[in-house]
Amino acid sequence: MKMENPTPIQWQFSERAQQLQSSVIREILKVTVRPDVISFAGGLPSPETFPIERMRAAFDTVLSKQGKVALQYGPTDGYGPLREWIADSLSTGGAKILPEQVLMVSGSQQGLDLLAKVLVDEGSKVLVETPSYLGALQAFSVYRPEFISVPTDDHGLIPEQLANVAQGARLLYALPNFQNPTGRSLSVERRAALVETCARLGLPLIEDDPYGALSYRGDPLPKMLTMNPNGVIYMGSFSKVLTPGIRLGYVVAPVPLIRKLEQAKQAADLHTAQLTQMVVHEVVKDGFLKEHIPTIRKLYADQCEAMLSALSEFFPSSVAWTRPEGGMFIWVTLPKHIDSMKLLDEAIAQNVAFVPGAPFYANAPEKNTLRLSFVTVPPAKIREGVEKLGKLITSKL
Amino acid sequence: MKMENPTPIQWQFSERAQQLQSSVIREILKVTVRPDVISFAGGLPSPETFPIERMRAAFDTVLSKQGKVALQYGPTDGYGPLREWIADSLSTGGAKILPEQVLMVSGSQQGLDLLAKVLVDEGSKVLVETPSYLGALQAFSVYRPEFISVPTDDHGLIPEQLANVAQGARLLYALPNFQNPTGRSLSVERRAALVETCARLGLPLIEDDPYGALSYRGDPLPKMLTMNPNGVIYMGSFSKVLTPGIRLGYVVAPVPLIRKLEQAKQAADLHTAQLTQMVVHEVVKDGFLKEHIPTIRKLYADQCEAMLSALSEFFPSSVAWTRPEGGMFIWVTLPKHIDSMKLLDEAIAQNVAFVPGAPFYANAPEKNTLRLSFVTVPPAKIREGVEKLGKLITSKL
Repeated sequence: MKMENPTPIQWQFSERAQQLQSSVIREILKVTVRPDVISFAGGLPSPETFPIERMRAAFDTVLSKQGKVALQYGPTDGYGPLREWIADSLSTGGAKILPEQVLMVSGSQQGLDLLAKVLVDEGSKVLVETPSYLGALQAFSVYRPEFISVPTDDHGLIPEQLANVAQGARLLYALPNFQNPTGRSLSVERRAALVETCARLGLPLIEDDPYGALSYRGDPLPKMLTMNPNGVIYMGSFSKVLTPGIRLGYVVAPVPLIRKLEQAKQAADLHTAQLTQMVVHEVVKDGFLKEHIPTIRKLYADQCEAMLSALSEFFPSSVAWTRPEGGMFIWVTLPKHIDSMKLLDEAIAQNVAFVPGAPFYANAPEKNTLRLSFVTVPPAKIREGVEKLGKLITSKL
Repeated sequence: MKMENPTPIQWQFSERAQQLQSSVIREILKVTVRPDVISFAGGLPSPETFPIERMRAAFDTVLSKQGKVALQYGPTDGYGPLREWIADSLSTGGAKILPEQVLMVSGSQQGLDLLAKVLVDEGSKVLVETPSYLGALQAFSVYRPEFISVPTDDHGLIPEQLANVAQGARLLYALPNFQNPTGRSLSVERRAALVETCARLGLPLIEDDPYGALSYRGDPLPKMLTMNPNGVIYMGSFSKVLTPGIRLGYVVAPVPLIRKLEQAKQAADLHTAQLTQMVVHEVVKDGFLKEHIPTIRKLYADQCEAMLSALSEFFPSSVAWTRPEGGMFIWVTLPKHIDSMKLLDEAIAQNVAFVPGAPFYANAPEKNTLRLSFVTVPPAKIREGVEKLGKLITSKL
């Protein structure tokens, strides 16, 4: 039945697809999975933190007791008891979050895609931090916005700068806790100022918070969501506190937006796996995260400390870096004349990898920056890798 | 820290989002989950067919042996061994399918979304069957195409009619096996003619095949994919042969298109859960589907037979219906003056439900049509429900 010599198709991609590219990070990761490479390039959590046995037991329980429901099609907005659990866990004395404000998504990345799908037209102004999370820039880019980079300093986004650039913007995207890529956190005062400014401007504020629970010391800072539940779109994820491979996150927003996102999700993939949601609910419902998260914090804090002390020891004084109080990343600023993209080739030749900073900028990239992750590398290897990088940088001075 | 009386946001949705609506079917399903309703409205497979114990054992095995890999982020194109298994299972003597032609997606619905995302611009012509699968119309609509309905008859899409309407079209979407909603199948001759016409026109042909394995008698007809692997985009799913709740499907296409779809998927949700893919591979790798699928076929064939005989017994002679040789649906055509949307209200009042046909038409709807599913209703209830419907229709004559 096979056709003889059919004419091959000339694929005509949509305008939005023509500008799609594979993420620089995922391309780098392909190189750095070689076991001889010390990779600070990953954005992956440490598999040492995955509660595998707990997950296995939960799959067993859910499939044994509720297999038919767990394996059937489910509601687009998500599994009710898990949405209730999330709403409860986000509610504070002053700000009550309701389950109908929660939409379950297939990882935060899908939340970003759906938000841009329903809020962004071609040419819409989208405000982002400088630098910003690459995955968000990638998700938003599909809908062809005009990115506006809001100025930042060592304390994150500068609220006073917002009004100058926000005219006509459709949303502001911010990652206030231990930001990817910089590791910076936004101070409480700035959070309040940002929320107020956005409310005054009528500007939707996306608070992306995958790392918020991973503070090394003390309690996490208050969420912007709780400062104005009617104006903030909160994004959470189980990727960094349980496991990322199950692809489970959530968007919390005012109901009119959630209903629109739900319609977009229905068209995009009907719903997120019911089984996964029931299993995660089974794992978290009795307070497991309260005992589990401190173990992740401890591991990451120790490895962050190891990297910070190696940086002090081996990096020349003309290099600057952030000192994160949580999360997974350190941001390095080299002397202006060093292009980290070129440095990467030489580093990989010496079996060390990182992510160059340029792709994290929506507009004018600062090419002398780079991102280091310490979470999947043991302390001795951290020291060895940083020493090699330090020598390489020193040789450029 | 909570703001006092912030101004509520006036949500400004994107143009594409303004036309998004919830699926009529999912709205109907909300009504018909009442246990006293005999629902022929579902598109859900029967949970009696879910191999729960087999799935449970596979989760156990994968998590016990490869937990760290299964729960970590995975590659965007999918789990290699499963892509190999799919490529092998689709290859024929004449047409070899390679693993790099396979992209794993979070259910076929995501495949539809990604295909439209990379192939459809606003106003692009998209050719669909008359009627067509509602979920596809919904997925494509987001990208605001101009739908062209290709004429069909009792044997499905009419290839000779294609050239008249295909000028400048970006894709043709067809569901050749036991189509949703009509239950019709495209003959082998028409498949060959369709593939040839599309190749001649340079028109990408999407072959959506969720029900192909569910033939009641004899082998499934040859796939259009195998007639021209360079021009056909094939979509498969584990929803109807294993379970739908895990959300796992795949797109098979020429490599240049797969690479573009992979970029779009990366922006949309990074990847489909690695654990799910490893578990499904564990379940299917040793030929389980060869023993499992016949049990589904038998169940559905028996219930289809029960419905066909009830229709003969209780429906008046002025009503016509299809006689599917596989799949999950029967399509009913009432006398012209009966609007099935209005009929539904009366039917629900009598605790019987179905899906009106109008939403399945991209253009001029035939309002006197409706879809019946028999797979989740036991034979005695099928008879009872069809009898009630028959009386209701007879009362309108």
